[in-house]
Amino acid sequence: MISKFIFQLIILLLYTRTCVNALWPLPQYWVKGSKTLSISPDFSIKQTSETRSILNSHTKEILKSAEDRLLNLLTSEQYVSPNVKSIFPKSIDKSNTLCFLKISIATNVSELDLGIDESYELIIPDSKNDDYQLTAYLKAQTVFGVLHGFNSFSQLLYYNRSKLLLPFAPHDIKDFPRFSHRGLLLDTSRNYFPINDILTTLNIMSWNKFNVFHWHITDSPSWPVVSEVYPELSNKGSYDPKYMIYTKDDIKKVIEYAKFRGIRIIPEFDMPGHTHSIAESMPEIMTCINKQPNWTTFANEPPSGQLNPALPETYTFLHKLLPELTSYFVDKYYHSGGDEVNLNCWNSTPSINEYLSQNPGFSIETLLAKFINETHGIVRKSKKIPIVWQEMVVDHKLPLNNDTIIQVWTTKEITKEVVSKGYRVITGSSDFWYLDCGHGAWLGNDVNGNSWCDPYKTWQKIYSYNPIDGLTDEETKLVLGGEVHLWTEQTDPTNLENLLWPRASAAAEVLWSGPYDTSKKIRTPDKDALARLTDWRFRMVDRGVNAIPLQPLWCARTGMCDVLNPK
Amino acid sequence: MISKFIFQLIILLLYTRTCVNALWPLPQYWVKGSKTLSISPDFSIKQTSETRSILNSHTKEILKSAEDRLLNLLTSEQYVSPNVKSIFPKSIDKSNTLCFLKISIATNVSELDLGIDESYELIIPDSKNDDYQLTAYLKAQTVFGVLHGFNSFSQLLYYNRSKLLLPFAPHDIKDFPRFSHRGLLLDTSRNYFPINDILTTLNIMSWNKFNVFHWHITDSPSWPVVSEVYPELSNKGSYDPKYMIYTKDDIKKVIEYAKFRGIRIIPEFDMPGHTHSIAESMPEIMTCINKQPNWTTFANEPPSGQLNPALPETYTFLHKLLPELTSYFVDKYYHSGGDEVNLNCWNSTPSINEYLSQNPGFSIETLLAKFINETHGIVRKSKKIPIVWQEMVVDHKLPLNNDTIIQVWTTKEITKEVVSKGYRVITGSSDFWYLDCGHGAWLGNDVNGNSWCDPYKTWQKIYSYNPIDGLTDEETKLVLGGEVHLWTEQTDPTNLENLLWPRASAAAEVLWSGPYDTSKKIRTPDKDALARLTDWRFRMVDRGVNAIPLQPLWCARTGMCDVLNPK
Repeated sequence: MISKFIFQLIILLLYTRTCVNALWPLPQYWVKGSKTLSISPDFSIKQTSETRSILNSHTKEILKSAEDRLLNLLTSEQYVSPNVKSIFPKSIDKSNTLCFLKISIATNVSELDLGIDESYELIIPDSKNDDYQLTAYLKAQTVFGVLHGFNSFSQLLYYNRSKLLLPFAPHDIKDFPRFSHRGLLLDTSRNYFPINDILTTLNIMSWNKFNVFHWHITDSPSWPVVSEVYPELSNKGSYDPKYMIYTKDDIKKVIEYAKFRGIRIIPEFDMPGHTHSIAESMPEIMTCINKQPNWTTFANEPPSGQLNPALPETYTFLHKLLPELTSYFVDKYYHSGGDEVNLNCWNSTPSINEYLSQNPGFSIETLLAKFINETHGIVRKSKKIPIVWQEMVVDHKLPLNNDTIIQVWTTKEITKEVVSKGYRVITGSSDFWYLDCGHGAWLGNDVNGNSWCDPYKTWQKIYSYNPIDGLTDEETKLVLGGEVHLWTEQTDPTNLENLLWPRASAAAEVLWSGPYDTSKKIRTPDKDALARLTDWRFRMVDRGVNAIPLQPLWCARTGMCDVLNPK
Repeated sequence: MISKFIFQLIILLLYTRTCVNALWPLPQYWVKGSKTLSISPDFSIKQTSETRSILNSHTKEILKSAEDRLLNLLTSEQYVSPNVKSIFPKSIDKSNTLCFLKISIATNVSELDLGIDESYELIIPDSKNDDYQLTAYLKAQTVFGVLHGFNSFSQLLYYNRSKLLLPFAPHDIKDFPRFSHRGLLLDTSRNYFPINDILTTLNIMSWNKFNVFHWHITDSPSWPVVSEVYPELSNKGSYDPKYMIYTKDDIKKVIEYAKFRGIRIIPEFDMPGHTHSIAESMPEIMTCINKQPNWTTFANEPPSGQLNPALPETYTFLHKLLPELTSYFVDKYYHSGGDEVNLNCWNSTPSINEYLSQNPGFSIETLLAKFINETHGIVRKSKKIPIVWQEMVVDHKLPLNNDTIIQVWTTKEITKEVVSKGYRVITGSSDFWYLDCGHGAWLGNDVNGNSWCDPYKTWQKIYSYNPIDGLTDEETKLVLGGEVHLWTEQTDPTNLENLLWPRASAAAEVLWSGPYDTSKKIRTPDKDALARLTDWRFRMVDRGVNAIPLQPLWCARTGMCDVLNPK
């Protein structure tokens, strides 16, 4: 009986040893201790005098705003973790009260861009080293590194017995992202999302150290963006010309809100396919508009409709519209789309066949090339670099300019093929990082229909994705990072947060901390990851996010719900 | 060009013809017209003098409360449907203003029970037949029929140009449920749901004409019910003895709230398996408690743990506890559980083996029979009739009393087997009506793990379920109805509504309107069903429910997103 008890005790210790505090995503370097600090009610954030002298007013504004958010969190958050407990001492000595966080920023970088320095160093001592009050230090090269440091700092705090505590001090964190492009794609055309939902998403993204919001802003079902040059685009093509649109001011608001959280906004105006919504106002430059009921021949999804690349009017439209649209956005990159162009649609269009017969040497493929060249010419004239979906170089073999970024959404073999051509790549395989999969057919009348990218991607599956799988070191350099995708056939504001969180967080750790753990092994959803993600999920819920539960609470607390032989 | 336009027009008309107003679930008989009424700002509900004389004060209270809810909805709801529009005339004649809804109830049934009369008749004329103001009539045998009539009435209303309209008058609706047991199971043990979430769920259930809430209240992970006889059960076995419990008063509140909405509460205290939570306070009457890491041998899910049927102390416990628990509830039926009893667990328990060797003629199976006999004896002494899961008669062949209801959760073959033994049955196959499926492994460390009941059950799949498939007319009489199930390994308050709605509504229509349509064909998710469910989903969202979208809004509006060749 005694031996059985001891055995159970050992099992219990074995299973609870990972119940330590959680940072998500995991820092590159993190040494911690065993002392618990308390946060002083008078806790404040200071900047070194050098920092104050370096920063310009705009950078100071970004910093001030982030400081306010952190201080606000400190007074409002009363987070009690399901699996981090009974580690807190009953009383905490006054000498272990943290009074200051001192910020030091080395450079005055005030604009976001691919590859800026986002590193930070967070030192939280467990005792005073002089007569001063206990002070933590946060050092970074840029203000954007400080934002990440603030988010890490906030995750170290737990509420216990009416006090905000910071366990496992001293902390020594040296952190930087493994990939410079850490994105989340949201499709706002299939279903509309009010600006507030986008802002909330950006806020949660920043906590997870994402730094790119890929705004798949238009597609076939609706065109929510208001153009001043072509007002009818949204007047007729949006779901509601008054309430379901994004104005220039809305977009400006989103960009600023995102920037203050270290997130770039990359817009995508998907063309020449996925453009049915343009037909609502300009059917004359479109073809295969809403073919019914046999839409499958003309598009991957209803409604069908593509821009007609044989008409001069189409190019007039692009030359007037795209400079306006690119001017709405500040990022150096612009996503021009290019996925799933339906060549059968173009092949069956009389005006296109007429064009081809009048222009010997032209084919459907060269017409596509002409379309992309024109589009990218306009984009570059607006001082932007284009991003395209993989089809442009993989299926259509277009000779795109070498600085174009290719977004791969299928397999690792395609990633290898694209980098071997010398292009920079953004990854995010639909086998791993498509958050919409697994909810069955959304097409009507389909009793046994499943989603094309079944099954549902669990956090474990998402976590096991390796964006650089099978690449040489040289090839790896061309992988800028990746994106999780939320296509919204079956998503609108009612279930946005349920689909994103905490599963997108799993991708965030792969992108920030890297696909390999400290022993150079591919990340697996082991006990440590599960315990940390569980803690982080409950903290997000505490902050008001409808992040879904991963397990029964019993499992979340005990960590005793593993499978013996994982598949 | 003209002919193409006409073709498109025909297609459009073909596709929009089903965009008429929606009742969900569909009434048994419904004839409607083409006139649009407006609801008078002074609209009120009256009762016939006969009704007033028949009803007692309690029934009057139920009616008054339902009237208040309907009137409140009429002033608060401003529902605009995505697919019911442009049918409204610009102005409505005063003679088409509906002023009264007159209620007539034939009997004073004031208690809910299996098989009470829930029928109603709703007559909404389109013109006055005398000098009086325009009046609609709602007739029912019981107040509970009136509740259904109110819900139907509320679904006929659309908001347009600042007015509440009632299109397609006159309406002649004669309606009654196909099945008398129309249930929804919620598991409140794996994750906890505050009382308010349960009340909200009951409210939404009533709009969908569900009439049974199967409260799977305890299970292995937690024991949230407060017992006064054994307070330690929830003190130690609940997730939080202060905040994550259900007191006797909480339960009373739930029962009353449900009754006022025509819903019975059937509690399930699952035994003898699925009882690990009892071990937190009473390990002495339990066996195989939380076997780790090899829990699979002892239970279908962690944590393992079953009541020990060989100990007299176990029966003492049951005889003291169950009379108390049954007294908390008013329904005539009590679910005693009985699923997934792990015989290997009992076989490997020394005290059980000792019992068997001392009691010749006893086996594990007869021990199980003894346990169930004792339990059901107590239940019957409390004037309740037991419900059990199918295993009790299918796997263990227990000779249960003939009035016991058997709940079948697997296939139609099992339903047939059980009714052929003469038992009454509640159905709800896991292949169709398990709302938790398809979200992958919740066990830790399982990269490619899926849920055991993959795939996700779409509304189409749920809608195609036939509870009486393959039964003779005689056998069909024994099928009381069915239940959709939400087991909550991966559900808590953050995603409850997303998982329930509108998918549970699909089951509600099968249970109310029947599995066959008017042409005696099994219901399929055809254009009519999709258009009505879409309308109903948007109305629920308007009422504050996080019901998930079924399609892009473009599809919801046009109905043009069907597959050509459904699987």
